[in-house]
Amino acid sequence: MTKRLKAVRERLKKKRLNCLIITNPANVTYTTGFLGDDSWALIGPRGVYLLTDSRYTEQATKQCPHCKIVERKKSIAETAAGLIQKLKSLQTVAVENSTSIALFRALRKNISVSVRAVAGIVEAVREIKDSGEVAAIRAAARIAAAALEQTRLFIKPRITENQLAGMLDFEIRKLGGSNSFETIVAFGPNGSRPHHRPGERRLKKNDCVLIDFGVKYKSYCCDLTRTFEIGNAGALYKKAYEATLEAQLAAIKAIRPGVQIQQIDTAAKEVIAAYDFPVYGHGTGHGLGLEVHEMPAIAKNNKAKLQPGQVITIEPGVYIPGKLGIRIEDDILVTKTGCKLLSHIPK
Amino acid sequence: MTKRLKAVRERLKKKRLNCLIITNPANVTYTTGFLGDDSWALIGPRGVYLLTDSRYTEQATKQCPHCKIVERKKSIAETAAGLIQKLKSLQTVAVENSTSIALFRALRKNISVSVRAVAGIVEAVREIKDSGEVAAIRAAARIAAAALEQTRLFIKPRITENQLAGMLDFEIRKLGGSNSFETIVAFGPNGSRPHHRPGERRLKKNDCVLIDFGVKYKSYCCDLTRTFEIGNAGALYKKAYEATLEAQLAAIKAIRPGVQIQQIDTAAKEVIAAYDFPVYGHGTGHGLGLEVHEMPAIAKNNKAKLQPGQVITIEPGVYIPGKLGIRIEDDILVTKTGCKLLSHIPK
Repeated sequence: MTKRLKAVRERLKKKRLNCLIITNPANVTYTTGFLGDDSWALIGPRGVYLLTDSRYTEQATKQCPHCKIVERKKSIAETAAGLIQKLKSLQTVAVENSTSIALFRALRKNISVSVRAVAGIVEAVREIKDSGEVAAIRAAARIAAAALEQTRLFIKPRITENQLAGMLDFEIRKLGGSNSFETIVAFGPNGSRPHHRPGERRLKKNDCVLIDFGVKYKSYCCDLTRTFEIGNAGALYKKAYEATLEAQLAAIKAIRPGVQIQQIDTAAKEVIAAYDFPVYGHGTGHGLGLEVHEMPAIAKNNKAKLQPGQVITIEPGVYIPGKLGIRIEDDILVTKTGCKLLSHIPK
Repeated sequence: MTKRLKAVRERLKKKRLNCLIITNPANVTYTTGFLGDDSWALIGPRGVYLLTDSRYTEQATKQCPHCKIVERKKSIAETAAGLIQKLKSLQTVAVENSTSIALFRALRKNISVSVRAVAGIVEAVREIKDSGEVAAIRAAARIAAAALEQTRLFIKPRITENQLAGMLDFEIRKLGGSNSFETIVAFGPNGSRPHHRPGERRLKKNDCVLIDFGVKYKSYCCDLTRTFEIGNAGALYKKAYEATLEAQLAAIKAIRPGVQIQQIDTAAKEVIAAYDFPVYGHGTGHGLGLEVHEMPAIAKNNKAKLQPGQVITIEPGVYIPGKLGIRIEDDILVTKTGCKLLSHIPK
């Protein structure tokens, strides 16, 4: 926590700021250890404050030993304003620009120092994971692998998407994890909608199954996708699977520090195009950690370079509406010399 | 949908506006029928647009027959700006003030007409539920009741909070629902933290169990809490339970159109105070619908009046840190003459 706060303060200092109001829940957790909702953190020149309400006071006292806990009676913006008015040596207060206009204005109305919206201060620090964070993501991926293996026993014709999703979620729970997002189970052509919600469609004898799911463990997320066939899903399926897997491996092979991120995206998409399949419209991946979608976006316009300590997904796909959808997704740590797979599920 | 759009347009007209950009996901669903993420709606003078990306185009075409679907290639703010530049007869564009500062600024930068943040336009329309919405909440509550009844069979000493939460979630799933928020299961003193996360604590022979959970069904949420004892949880438990139940019944009895909302809050809190228990710090309830927390807040400073068609929770509690926590919560429809319970679980 000390290291994180130091890194945040250094970034603030570069912008000539000494006070940041953190409203993004994951950023609040990252800088305070607090796991509840509806709370803000304030990093001031001489301390870190957690602004919460009576529902969370007991929990906050336990989870945030290095913070001063402020139990609010008024609205959170008024409480933050009241605290700022009491702090000394502030000229400007920075507020995360993910804050809503409504809250930003309510805050500005109630304080006399100037308020400035800033982008991505804590997010940039979060982008580089420490060993504890990597271990948590790895543990989440291990639970995911074990849960999927258990669930495979139940994948038989006649089961519905919804039943299968429920079983997978239950296995995750039994293993001590929770969902990092709503599990996607798509049978047959339903797979062509990348964010399909599991429904009442039943599995057929010769069918394909797409499962995109994530586990949250110790507050950290993994995000994985596997697609497989039941019986014989046909020649088109086989060719599309081959293209997707080859695309994924090409992207993973390209991962190392210093590589421009858009090159990773291109590496995967070129393979799909070479197979003459339509190139997927989404990015090839994204960072993950406390949130299931974090910086960096592995997308075509990202000219930034990969850095050691980033954890990203690689998830190319082939989508043919009305016919099939295939996606393969793993979680990968960028290391000093290349990369390391954090998820281990057979493909 | 036509009725909803008409109501939104009437509210816009009163503010002399004819174009609203909707960024809150529940508001997008409410005005378009779209159930995916990362999409905005634009209500223009001559049509409704859904701005989405390639992951959702197929789904949007099915779910939003009355909308023009715009598949974005650029950022969502740039896409919205591009669309606005093409629309005619606009002087001012309204944007929901729950939008982040970052997106608001990105939008303003890219268009020549003026942009204004507005509060709660769609939320105010959503506050009054139509019969279809009430039916969906009622159906969600029915699933919740059935799932809890199934799960009760497993509530035996030695089970952990996490196992019990997992079983309840699985039952919800089997019944065709999903969680409207992360299920809270708290044994013994853990109940004193209103938003406790289920952990590894095992149920004892004489213990109390608090379960706060919600079901989402056809996009609508219910939110319910039950507390009960296993064996004999002691005299303090019994007295606190009695106080909580009496407080809940007093609040429910006070619900009818025209009553000031803060009076509902007071009705419950007076009972708790009369029993000499500490009065809970949270509000007595909240609206619910597409989101599990909606307008109105049933809280002490709310001077608005109850209206027929609102659906609210009533959830007083008694919390004694280190000892116990009790909460009882039901979902209630405000009718023309009084109110109607939408949830039916034994207390």
